[in-house]
Amino acid sequence: MMSIAVIYGGTRQNGNTEILTKRTIKDLEVVSLHLKEYTIKPIEDMRHTEAGFQDVGDDYNFLMDQMMQNDILIFSTPIYWYSMSGTMKNFIDRWSQTLRDPKYKDFRDRMSKKKAYVIIAGGDSPHIKGLPLIQQFNYIFDFVGLPFEGYIIGEGNKPGDIYEDQKAFYAADQLHVTLTSLSSSS
Amino acid sequence: MMSIAVIYGGTRQNGNTEILTKRTIKDLEVVSLHLKEYTIKPIEDMRHTEAGFQDVGDDYNFLMDQMMQNDILIFSTPIYWYSMSGTMKNFIDRWSQTLRDPKYKDFRDRMSKKKAYVIIAGGDSPHIKGLPLIQQFNYIFDFVGLPFEGYIIGEGNKPGDIYEDQKAFYAADQLHVTLTSLSSSS
Amino acid sequence: MMSIAVIYGGTRQNGNTEILTKRTIKDLEVVSLHLKEYTIKPIEDMRHTEAGFQDVGDDYNFLMDQMMQNDILIFSTPIYWYSMSGTMKNFIDRWSQTLRDPKYKDFRDRMSKKKAYVIIAGGDSPHIKGLPLIQQFNYIFDFVGLPFEGYIIGEGNKPGDIYEDQKAFYAADQLHVTLTSLSSSS
Amino acid sequence: MMSIAVIYGGTRQNGNTEILTKRTIKDLEVVSLHLKEYTIKPIEDMRHTEAGFQDVGDDYNFLMDQMMQNDILIFSTPIYWYSMSGTMKNFIDRWSQTLRDPKYKDFRDRMSKKKAYVIIAGGDSPHIKGLPLIQQFNYIFDFVGLPFEGYIIGEGNKPGDIYEDQKAFYAADQLHVTLTSLSSSS
Repeated sequence: MMSIAVIYGGTRQNGNTEILTKRTIKDLEVVSLHLKEYTIKPIEDMRHTEAGFQDVGDDYNFLMDQMMQNDILIFSTPIYWYSMSGTMKNFIDRWSQTLRDPKYKDFRDRMSKKKAYVIIAGGDSPHIKGLPLIQQFNYIFDFVGLPFEGYIIGEGNKPGDIYEDQKAFYAADQLHVTLTSLSSSS
Repeated sequence: MMSIAVIYGGTRQNGNTEILTKRTIKDLEVVSLHLKEYTIKPIEDMRHTEAGFQDVGDDYNFLMDQMMQNDILIFSTPIYWYSMSGTMKNFIDRWSQTLRDPKYKDFRDRMSKKKAYVIIAGGDSPHIKGLPLIQQFNYIFDFVGLPFEGYIIGEGNKPGDIYEDQKAFYAADQLHVTLTSLSSSS
Repeated sequence: MMSIAVIYGGTRQNGNTEILTKRTIKDLEVVSLHLKEYTIKPIEDMRHTEAGFQDVGDDYNFLMDQMMQNDILIFSTPIYWYSMSGTMKNFIDRWSQTLRDPKYKDFRDRMSKKKAYVIIAGGDSPHIKGLPLIQQFNYIFDFVGLPFEGYIIGEGNKPGDIYEDQKAFYAADQLHVTLTSLSSSS
Repeated sequence: MMSIAVIYGGTRQNGNTEILTKRTIKDLEVVSLHLKEYTIKPIEDMRHTEAGFQDVGDDYNFLMDQMMQNDILIFSTPIYWYSMSGTMKNFIDRWSQTLRDPKYKDFRDRMSKKKAYVIIAGGDSPHIKGLPLIQQFNYIFDFVGLPFEGYIIGEGNKPGDIYEDQKAFYAADQLHVTLTSLSSSS
């Protein structure tokens, strides 16, 4: 039985990406991490200092702990300026710290047993101009050994536009079937 | 005579990207904006609310004002996780606010008269895995009508590695010649 | 009422891409151009010679004429080595000739009134490694002013694998609805 | 002592890409394979037929043999329609045949000991619109285990334009130093 965490990068309540994501997880039990509700400081690059990374007194470690307790990770972010939101980027930038954190010395190993999905939506030709972002997620997951199981691209600008994107909703429904099966098998 | 602003996204003092950038601007007079020294809140997506974007009491508007007073914009960011730093991303995310700011109703028009350069450096195959980031900068600049005049990709992981990247330094020197000419012509 | 041409780049009878494409066009009347059944010489770059491009005695002009008589163009190619087949590439390379052909001096104008779709399928992570090909189709269509209306990526290596790719088939069925509507409206 | 083969995909005598490539190899002894001077049939996808790939009576095997006898492979192609020429694509498509050719059952192993470089040039924003092609070369080389050591992008449309691209010429000169060193060490 695989557990699910959704990492939300959006900054708007009920934005298009969130609607699409909620359609995907529907009735499933998930841990929802709305990053905007937490304080995540930008990384300070301490990789090459003697002291290394220090605890910086924000919510990052809590979020990382929550995420790591789950088997399926869904990264859900609106496409802001052709990339993930700055909020989500700050969260991922901090993974450099986790990679050097003795508490997480098995980070890559644990990641390799999880499954990652990406859900993004945007208004400016997301099926073309969102592709570099998909490539970046692929590199990111590759680096930590996290299997990239699939992605959904939605189209929508104004709130609710996403309801017009039937193809994205079908993909969401199909992913829901997959997730239901993964989360219920023993 | 064109004036120059450098927007630094790095979080390490004297990191590889900064070294490469300083080689590029050498003896030229520039406005240096080290984003990490300022408070830039993540965008709250208010595009579709009645009130629109509100002043959020941080340094964003100051930074934007500084940037806009210059003719040549150099975006200098280390490659963190195959993209710009979260700090720089938060800055650019906020451009959505400026696009709706009555004070900046000529934003695109003013941008179209400037010139943008990008300097990035990273340790994990930046000449391949940094390409999606270059494509994103291209989309970003396109969206605001800012001409993308060129980019430099440097390779380096540990501090100082960049000094080994002769090709990047040559490109920096050549860009220096261009900038010198642009900033001194009347 | 819009007419449809399918340009097939595959070299295998009934390959995965062709199966997916035939599902898309099902009962619709289309002009099918199987490029492998024709002789298409590689371009000789004569753009800058005095004589310009000459007739090279192959089937290219026939194929181009056929294609241009239709309103909806579906480019269907297996992903060979992360790109379109060499056969389709040779066909597209020759567009440089058409762009200079007095007979086609309204080429871009006519293209701008058509609609293009792309259908590709491959076995090695096509949803990631096929993305540069989608970006290239976008640049190609942009250059000639042809609106890029959508694409379908299928996954499959051995013949028939594609039948397992439900998401691709759903996309095919949905595109079929769109094509039916476009081809029947007056 | 490493030997060098240059695989030329261009179709114009002394085109910009060829000029840039010749600057790179200058005084070095190389095997030059101008693909346009040979007959290379498009692949027929026989991977999944009983008989497998058959000899198709063209120059492909000769070219492959020539290439494989060398340690450094330089792929030199003008950017036609944002990708390699159809001529070069047909050559690479045929690698699928070599991968199943008993004569080449150590293909990947031998490739892994070579070094690949790519030289491309084009007229339409090659530093942006040529990037998908670079990504494809990366996937291609990855698939056969061939180390991708570097690439040069040149800008030029009309014959001789390339002489204006100082940055590309510098990169060529620098690669020349590397090649000289590789080809003379014992």
